[in-house]
Amino acid sequence: MSNETNKDENIITAVLPGFMELTPKDQMAFDRMKDIIALTYKQFGFISIDTPAIERSEVLLTKAGGETEKQIYRFNKGDNDLSLRFDLTIPLARYVAEHQHDLVFPFRRSQIAKVYRGERPQKGRFREFYQCDIDIIGRDSLSLMNDAEISSIIYSVFSKLDFGPFVIKINNRKVINGLLESLGVVELGVEIMRTIDKLDKIGKDEVAKTLLEIGVPEEVSADIFRFLEISGTNEEIISILKQVGEKLSGNKEMFDLGVEELSEVVKSIELFGVPDKNIVIDLSIARGLDYYTGTVYETKLTDYPQVGSVCSGGRFDNLAEKYSDKKFPGVGISIGLTRLFSQLKDAGIIDATAGASTPTRALVIPMIEDMTVPFSIASKLRNAGVPTEVYFDDVKPKVKLAYANKLEIPYVILIGEDELSAGKYMLKDMVSGEQELIGEEDLIERLTS
Amino acid sequence: MSNETNKDENIITAVLPGFMELTPKDQMAFDRMKDIIALTYKQFGFISIDTPAIERSEVLLTKAGGETEKQIYRFNKGDNDLSLRFDLTIPLARYVAEHQHDLVFPFRRSQIAKVYRGERPQKGRFREFYQCDIDIIGRDSLSLMNDAEISSIIYSVFSKLDFGPFVIKINNRKVINGLLESLGVVELGVEIMRTIDKLDKIGKDEVAKTLLEIGVPEEVSADIFRFLEISGTNEEIISILKQVGEKLSGNKEMFDLGVEELSEVVKSIELFGVPDKNIVIDLSIARGLDYYTGTVYETKLTDYPQVGSVCSGGRFDNLAEKYSDKKFPGVGISIGLTRLFSQLKDAGIIDATAGASTPTRALVIPMIEDMTVPFSIASKLRNAGVPTEVYFDDVKPKVKLAYANKLEIPYVILIGEDELSAGKYMLKDMVSGEQELIGEEDLIERLTS
Repeated sequence: MSNETNKDENIITAVLPGFMELTPKDQMAFDRMKDIIALTYKQFGFISIDTPAIERSEVLLTKAGGETEKQIYRFNKGDNDLSLRFDLTIPLARYVAEHQHDLVFPFRRSQIAKVYRGERPQKGRFREFYQCDIDIIGRDSLSLMNDAEISSIIYSVFSKLDFGPFVIKINNRKVINGLLESLGVVELGVEIMRTIDKLDKIGKDEVAKTLLEIGVPEEVSADIFRFLEISGTNEEIISILKQVGEKLSGNKEMFDLGVEELSEVVKSIELFGVPDKNIVIDLSIARGLDYYTGTVYETKLTDYPQVGSVCSGGRFDNLAEKYSDKKFPGVGISIGLTRLFSQLKDAGIIDATAGASTPTRALVIPMIEDMTVPFSIASKLRNAGVPTEVYFDDVKPKVKLAYANKLEIPYVILIGEDELSAGKYMLKDMVSGEQELIGEEDLIERLTS
Repeated sequence: MSNETNKDENIITAVLPGFMELTPKDQMAFDRMKDIIALTYKQFGFISIDTPAIERSEVLLTKAGGETEKQIYRFNKGDNDLSLRFDLTIPLARYVAEHQHDLVFPFRRSQIAKVYRGERPQKGRFREFYQCDIDIIGRDSLSLMNDAEISSIIYSVFSKLDFGPFVIKINNRKVINGLLESLGVVELGVEIMRTIDKLDKIGKDEVAKTLLEIGVPEEVSADIFRFLEISGTNEEIISILKQVGEKLSGNKEMFDLGVEELSEVVKSIELFGVPDKNIVIDLSIARGLDYYTGTVYETKLTDYPQVGSVCSGGRFDNLAEKYSDKKFPGVGISIGLTRLFSQLKDAGIIDATAGASTPTRALVIPMIEDMTVPFSIASKLRNAGVPTEVYFDDVKPKVKLAYANKLEIPYVILIGEDELSAGKYMLKDMVSGEQELIGEEDLIERLTS
């Protein structure tokens, strides 16, 4: 029970490098974004699922290895070889395989949770960060309408987040894979895709050089670049692709299927009410991850290209192939919220100074001894849905008002002897500074409207 | 890009022992509880703070060690000695020390997050579990009204959770500490408290035996038991305690202060509107953790004593003494939600079968080709706050209705040629089975009311 001071001067209280911890004002801004995403996912009927942050290492690690797996937090406890999840897709695959008989398909699941990657910390890269995922998982088959709906959900989320104009870029991996097959370089596919994915970052010359290095003949590279340079409206691109398909020699089945799928998805997206200007076919988008097999998405904020893709995803033929003999095709997206928040804040887009540091909308300040009325009105306001505090510490009124000011609580309710005997409340608008003596009903109405 | 089946028969897809993973129906029930707790905390003006799950080991480990610390998940990454948090209180202490100049005091913070304890898994014990914490932290001082308000928040949470009658048991550690000081056995305080805390579990005889073993003279044990057996209404107990105080010899300052504090807190709780039957002084409550220095709470569900305390907490003189020279007194509580859910489910209190497996309230079933109207009404319903799905896969109507039935979606909206030409919707109540042809406005009103 000893309470001697045992402060150890050497303990660092800052969070570890690569971790994000926010002060209240920023946390409120972060949570507003998170809540918008969560609510939108819910409005589209996605059930929020919660898998453990710790998994068996064998679940997370594939035979092939990969960049992400090198960054894994892995440790032993007892006899168990454990790892922290580095994404939410692999845990979903395990979840679907494990619980397939308790699920109704198409299974629409969302998960907004932290994932862990022990990579070298750098600007905009985090070791612990939120992913906000949705996926629609079918059993055996899943119609392309789902790919279209996913685009409409991206549209809905970023319209509500309200960071200015944005473009959802869409492609289909079968188109580029099919092209490579027809050109006879499909066995270099993974490497070619990874190289093409860097086009924006390293430029055409550098990509051409790398392609040559990995063994792509120059005339094939030229065909690939001609393909990547196809531009126009979505309709025009589809029409050009069909012409390209007619001229292709070799095995072009996959190419034709990809064009067919892309065409169908883009047409369906219209039905979902996504405006033309927000959905653009971009043949250069391949997405690095190997498991995408059809539609792929990236999303860019027009005014802030430096932020990169803010929402990416795609279609996979078979989500849980590592864990189940059954076939579960799926389509989904992920928003890397921690990075998005951090970069938008650096860019000055998120103005945390505009918000309060508390959810409290009303602070009741009693200037009387008897707390009955202050506590009663606070309780009524809370029941009406208004986050309310009572400042009951016995300090000067000035200190109480300063508390409201510092936290940027929008309303203060003053209760002194005069108000008490009149059965009224003095409502002070902390922004305008205006005061008004009003009755209980009016007070509740004002604060709930 | 190969898609051969590479399922490894040996990969276990079940979660690790001691981890909880829920199927959609249970997850919905769990989230309803979590949402009630989160909303109540928010209504009382607590800001939700998010600290990393990984901390420097030196932050979490105290010199003394302790049962909890033995269970810690600890590992190295690079040069860093890291651990997963095993509670939310130590991270809060670090947070307050680190960000003290950005915080406004009294600082009201909530955190609902997972913590990790690698203990032997057993019924009702988890290695990963949610704690739902609130704490009010003062700078230098914090009035006892806060201790009273915390009780009223416990009352509010468990009234809303609606698991039948419950009792908040309250005590003050200064009372028992003061008694031990006056009886000359204060140096055995920690051990005596830990022993007393087991009274409910192991019975009086076993406690007496243990007390003797740790060196408490028999006549002192008798005094302690007489003290623990004090009963009556809260008023009666306070009055008896005052009489005990008058008879105490030795240093009884702490005892008197404890009785004074307990008396003041219990009186104030009345002001907050907590009914008498829900708040009971129980002198046997000590709470195992060393850092409580004043008020302590436990909460029991009257009909389910086997569940144990469902919400515990207390007052600490100095939260961040390990990390800061400044003094931060605080008072707070924690609800162990994972264990609570698991035990209530085992006891049959949570009837997950009563709920849906999706947030979706309305499923639009088009029986026409053109999706314009189905997508349009879905969008309007979502904007009105109704989670809505469209079943657009081309399967038999029976399959679509079965999907709604299995997920227990309450409403289905059928749109066929007849409805389309009449400009109406067939709304089917899936519980009653009743169908009604109604217009758009009526439809939205029905589903939002």
